[in-house]
Amino acid sequence: MTHPLNPRMAATFPPPVMEARRWLEGVDFARDRPLINVSQAAPVAPPPEPLRQAIAEAALSDDGAHLYGPVLGLGELRAELARHWSGAYGGQIAMDQVAITSGCNQAFCAVMATLAGEGDEVIVPTPWYFNHKMWLDMAGVRTVPLMLDDSLIPDPDQAAALIGTRTRAIVLVSPNNPGGAEYPPQVIRAFHDLARDRGLALVLDETYRDFDSRTQAGGPPPHDLFADPDWGRSFIHLYSFSKAYRLTGHRVGAIVASKARLAEVEKFLDTVAICPNGLGQRAALWGMRNLGDWLAGERAEILRRRAAVRDGFGGLEGWRLLGCGAYFAYAEHPHPIASDALAQRLVGEAGILMLPGTMFQPQGAAEGARQMRIAFANIDRAGIAELFARLAAFAP
Amino acid sequence: MTHPLNPRMAATFPPPVMEARRWLEGVDFARDRPLINVSQAAPVAPPPEPLRQAIAEAALSDDGAHLYGPVLGLGELRAELARHWSGAYGGQIAMDQVAITSGCNQAFCAVMATLAGEGDEVIVPTPWYFNHKMWLDMAGVRTVPLMLDDSLIPDPDQAAALIGTRTRAIVLVSPNNPGGAEYPPQVIRAFHDLARDRGLALVLDETYRDFDSRTQAGGPPPHDLFADPDWGRSFIHLYSFSKAYRLTGHRVGAIVASKARLAEVEKFLDTVAICPNGLGQRAALWGMRNLGDWLAGERAEILRRRAAVRDGFGGLEGWRLLGCGAYFAYAEHPHPIASDALAQRLVGEAGILMLPGTMFQPQGAAEGARQMRIAFANIDRAGIAELFARLAAFAP
Repeated sequence: MTHPLNPRMAATFPPPVMEARRWLEGVDFARDRPLINVSQAAPVAPPPEPLRQAIAEAALSDDGAHLYGPVLGLGELRAELARHWSGAYGGQIAMDQVAITSGCNQAFCAVMATLAGEGDEVIVPTPWYFNHKMWLDMAGVRTVPLMLDDSLIPDPDQAAALIGTRTRAIVLVSPNNPGGAEYPPQVIRAFHDLARDRGLALVLDETYRDFDSRTQAGGPPPHDLFADPDWGRSFIHLYSFSKAYRLTGHRVGAIVASKARLAEVEKFLDTVAICPNGLGQRAALWGMRNLGDWLAGERAEILRRRAAVRDGFGGLEGWRLLGCGAYFAYAEHPHPIASDALAQRLVGEAGILMLPGTMFQPQGAAEGARQMRIAFANIDRAGIAELFARLAAFAP
Repeated sequence: MTHPLNPRMAATFPPPVMEARRWLEGVDFARDRPLINVSQAAPVAPPPEPLRQAIAEAALSDDGAHLYGPVLGLGELRAELARHWSGAYGGQIAMDQVAITSGCNQAFCAVMATLAGEGDEVIVPTPWYFNHKMWLDMAGVRTVPLMLDDSLIPDPDQAAALIGTRTRAIVLVSPNNPGGAEYPPQVIRAFHDLARDRGLALVLDETYRDFDSRTQAGGPPPHDLFADPDWGRSFIHLYSFSKAYRLTGHRVGAIVASKARLAEVEKFLDTVAICPNGLGQRAALWGMRNLGDWLAGERAEILRRRAAVRDGFGGLEGWRLLGCGAYFAYAEHPHPIASDALAQRLVGEAGILMLPGTMFQPQGAAEGARQMRIAFANIDRAGIAELFARLAAFAP
């Protein structure tokens, strides 16, 4: 049918979020029982009004917002992030150690392209974030799963045993997608030291850092890696502006890495993107400069939702909550069917869209069939109550 | 220094446009003799006022513009492009044969990722567009140069002789970057038929189609490939909204291909971008719906500049114009130094920034050292007159 076709492309799977959307096709939801969509980690509301006005203002009066900018992003935004992060993590991050990308997925792909190619290996705690797996598949890189126990916290010793001659990097996501686990600072430190000692890179995706239950403005950082003056040797940090300021549709993310690494990243970004879009970068900059208090409120609300989800699982017979943090709950379901079949039945029979564990695990893994991811940050506390009522009433 | 480093990344070159920008560092230009920058193919002015207002309005009132959209782009924009192109090319293009991308560079990478991987080969007329070469290098795909004679029009018979067992695609750009050549319809048809007969894909980048001197609204199309009901079998078309509506900073491009091909493209775009940005897509849609007359005026102005450039070269001793069309003139210089050295000297001594042919040719190719690319669409006719005055006065 599709010829010629790169076998690397054929070998990976279609976008899970788009597949899940297709499950909705042809399904009617009663007006008094609308769909509860907890499939995608995405704010459902637009950014706050003053930020929308700032974007509109930039469109009208800032010529540069419409034209090509530097490949590695707007200087002011790179400097602002460097300043914020230097404070938040108690370290020294310079502007030229920051690159802006068209979203955090692109940050991951750009970094990984500089690290690993055909025949190389990358260690990834599993359940994994599916787009990470897809990139590695497409690049001909073997994903080495570091299977997690029910704590969903990866074990550095277990990772050490997986390192081979072709291993190039270890990827962590904290707070985790899909697991919701917040990795302890000493675990992140141990992974870093392992990577450094073995000549690997540690890639830490902190997309959900703003919703970490343990940290807040002026509080302790989620890890101490940036405090090491030589952090750039092995450490690469990824970030997304999408969740903090509700800018998912603007596609703005970031990489913090050594200047030498960013010189390689620049080749990839020039080729794949030329530059991040101008209005999105200005929106992110305005957010960082003006929405600190607003974001603290968002964080508090998401932490309240998290508490409601924990309570909900406490009273839900048969289900077992494994991880719960930032945007996600990750749980074992009690039903005698595989998670992907369950997810599709929940659409029609309970009016709930959530993603099955099979989407975050190697094909055929028994764990995947028992697990479900719930992106709870998308729904308010009334919605959470309704979610649990429907799950309680559901009997396959 | 940068360890670990994917050797595929190390093997390609840094972004030429960023390298050229660095030549400007520390150079002072007299107030009455400012820099003439003909290095990048980019409008220097923002979009027209009504389009800026439409973008601002979307930022304020269209919630969806701020949120994730479909991976393959906004349905309305896909449908609009399908409708326009079906008319312009005299063929049948359906909405689900169109994907929107974050710029045309990304369109190329996404398509190429589905076609060719490690060890495969792709035939590329040379001088080439450097970002195409960079992607192929990074993907481990061998670029097979189809060396052009002074006509800058590629020869299908010569291409046929380059096809081997690992060849997956032929890439054409028309009107050409960097050469400015407008490929005759029968040449494009011959390349298509060659690709089809040999089981390859023909990828045709038509980023500069709106400025083709031979075509205009209601006139004959630049090729007849879409008129074949089975065009999707071998043909893939790429487009950019950046030049037509001055939206370079918004990053919006497009792919037209078979639905089966786009299902593979969707995997790449989901992983690398998630979706194109919402405001840029709305800007492109507004442009297609409202700026037809305005674009016709832009086209007329660029054609007048092209005429001025041709006249200029006619009176410039020693230089030889090889191609001139759309945004670019491509010429042989008469100076006894290599083009990359000449380009750097022109910055300081003539206040001109243009890109050397070495950036569009294999390393060490004699042609590259003699050639220069001039992105003339960026400067008005007074600027063009000044450009030629300075080139005439320059003696190395």
